[in-house]
Amino acid sequence: MPAADRPLRSRVAAANGAGCDFPIQNLPYGVFSTQGSAPRCGVAIGDMILDLAACEARGLLDAGGTFSQPRLNGFMALGRGQWDAVRARLTVLLAEGAEGDLPLVAMSDAQMHLPIRVSEFTDFYASRHHAFNVGALFRGPENALPPQWTHMPIGYNGRASSVVVSGTPIRRPMGQVRGENGPEWTPCRRLDLELELGAIVGADSEMGQRIGVEDAERMIFGYVLLNDWSARDIQAWEYQPLGPFQSKALGTTIGAWIVPQAALEPFRCAGAPRENPLLPYLQEKRSGLYDLEIGWTMNGQVMARTNYNVMYYSSAQQLAHHTSSGCPMRVGDLLGSGTISGPGRDQAGALLEMTEGGQVPVTVNGAPRRFIEDGDEIGLFAHAQGAGYRIGFGPCTGRILPARP
Amino acid sequence: MPAADRPLRSRVAAANGAGCDFPIQNLPYGVFSTQGSAPRCGVAIGDMILDLAACEARGLLDAGGTFSQPRLNGFMALGRGQWDAVRARLTVLLAEGAEGDLPLVAMSDAQMHLPIRVSEFTDFYASRHHAFNVGALFRGPENALPPQWTHMPIGYNGRASSVVVSGTPIRRPMGQVRGENGPEWTPCRRLDLELELGAIVGADSEMGQRIGVEDAERMIFGYVLLNDWSARDIQAWEYQPLGPFQSKALGTTIGAWIVPQAALEPFRCAGAPRENPLLPYLQEKRSGLYDLEIGWTMNGQVMARTNYNVMYYSSAQQLAHHTSSGCPMRVGDLLGSGTISGPGRDQAGALLEMTEGGQVPVTVNGAPRRFIEDGDEIGLFAHAQGAGYRIGFGPCTGRILPARP
Repeated sequence: MPAADRPLRSRVAAANGAGCDFPIQNLPYGVFSTQGSAPRCGVAIGDMILDLAACEARGLLDAGGTFSQPRLNGFMALGRGQWDAVRARLTVLLAEGAEGDLPLVAMSDAQMHLPIRVSEFTDFYASRHHAFNVGALFRGPENALPPQWTHMPIGYNGRASSVVVSGTPIRRPMGQVRGENGPEWTPCRRLDLELELGAIVGADSEMGQRIGVEDAERMIFGYVLLNDWSARDIQAWEYQPLGPFQSKALGTTIGAWIVPQAALEPFRCAGAPRENPLLPYLQEKRSGLYDLEIGWTMNGQVMARTNYNVMYYSSAQQLAHHTSSGCPMRVGDLLGSGTISGPGRDQAGALLEMTEGGQVPVTVNGAPRRFIEDGDEIGLFAHAQGAGYRIGFGPCTGRILPARP
Repeated sequence: MPAADRPLRSRVAAANGAGCDFPIQNLPYGVFSTQGSAPRCGVAIGDMILDLAACEARGLLDAGGTFSQPRLNGFMALGRGQWDAVRARLTVLLAEGAEGDLPLVAMSDAQMHLPIRVSEFTDFYASRHHAFNVGALFRGPENALPPQWTHMPIGYNGRASSVVVSGTPIRRPMGQVRGENGPEWTPCRRLDLELELGAIVGADSEMGQRIGVEDAERMIFGYVLLNDWSARDIQAWEYQPLGPFQSKALGTTIGAWIVPQAALEPFRCAGAPRENPLLPYLQEKRSGLYDLEIGWTMNGQVMARTNYNVMYYSSAQQLAHHTSSGCPMRVGDLLGSGTISGPGRDQAGALLEMTEGGQVPVTVNGAPRRFIEDGDEIGLFAHAQGAGYRIGFGPCTGRILPARP
């Protein structure tokens, strides 16, 4: 291809491989430590992590000392101007041909930590296929899609304290479920995943202040993979009328790497067709969705692949709606996209949909599964395919430990 | 009365008046500032605030320097042993006849601040009268009480960032509501209060750890008044299936004074009669409810009085249930009791119930009200009546500002 169309390359050789999640076009942020050293901020490049705290200490870049903190909240709070400046500087430092020694750490030597202090966690419900499929299972097909669904991004407040980083084991919960003779106390029998993208809010808003969709998008620092583990039997018994509670509090796993919004910019695309016009406060001048393949595995087997572009509402629309009552947002708020499901069974972002409520088992490495069993490992993946590179999110995995009765 | 039965008296004369909210038996914690000085922790006594930061600086008591912080989280994190020791020491320092100069500040000279950094906010639904009345209005009498209601404390995650201290004005929200020809964008037309007690969690729990009811009670630092402002028209349109969201995010007001659990101990009493046995994880050896008169005013007129002892679930049971899936709790978590309503119309903790969904107006200072109008001020109050003293919670007020269209 002509030189002008050739993608930018990095001095870190592994970053230039076609299948690499972390080319120089990505530059996702995370928090890592190595043996004997404290957690600090870094950027993924190829199979390495650039130690941003060390970069600051050497005067290679300036983020007010925030990169030596064990969470990215301090850096995010500096604002979008600083996000852009640091990203531009990192692109220069890591480009092919750049000179000077860099503090690079092998990913294989690093332990990853939760990248942000999660202020609050909100989960949405924005895939039409998922909303219809799950609604039909919980309430029958005639009541599947709530009447306001095409008019507003439906969401609920989740639990921030149970958000953990990829790789953290998840304990099967005990809980109260509907039994034949009244409620039963039991280990969850219908444990499920939810395939989601999480948007990370990088700016505060004031109480009483409404944020328009465009400004909302500018408040989003980046995106992570997000698995909203769900105990479907606990959920079915508890969720009316105030929504899911303990069924969603057993754990929410996020990926270790926050892909900056700027890295996804080339992949902006339209979402699901809209059935009715939205009220003005939710209208987008340009779509906030991305052409991003996303899927999940069980014990290494790919179970489903779909695309973030099936969604009906973008994170920017969700954030705008979140502030519609004047609710203040804070740096470190995490917004789950809602389960991402395409129309097909092999595009379902949850086992509940894929197995039709546990009626039709699927086969995983030759064994049948209706829901997640002890020892099963769920992994999420996502990539946006550019010309000669791809933007990946890295792993988002969790293995299920048996319940403690 | 004989000396042994005479209640303990304070050196602060106003604390010994029969109608005083803050006798020496109470000693609620708050955060205050005076002109030109930084917010710090204090204890209410009569019409004065004992400056705990100054007490620590003078060596009168020891809380590891936490009282000079602008929130009580640091003190709470020291643990119950320290809560008890400081309370005992304060009782000695403030007793009638105690000597030595104390750093007392007139309440009238102080500004009160949010007493805690709210980690997360959870709201429950534990008054049978409220649940039935509201359920009947939203879903009809046949579907009023959800089937799990008598088996578990139903709750949902609220929004911590919109919790404010008594006296903070509350902006009427804009929002999306059901209209005749599809949804409308409008200032809320059915703005309501919810009369609640808030329990403040003073200890962490681990992810995957379930807390029994007795241990849960020991994690509760104290109680505040709590008004969970509610936009009923926004709520009706948005809340199915995932629960209330923007209808509850416009603001939640809490009282400035946290009444220690120890001050309520003499008022422990049974709650509402139980219709079925609870599962073991929710059973209490002794009730965690209190004989506590609680009510609310509009523009100074008392609108309702009821008692916290009408509740079906205690905060300890709610906290135990909250951890049933292994959800980790954190110092500073706030649990709303749910709206406290007795059976009568003059015992209703919300206008929705009192006016039967806006059908039957009430009269306030001669003027009719169905819901809250701009400029209206709502105040909550609560007292436990002891022999010769009463434990009060101080004010919990908020005035409504007009919407910003």
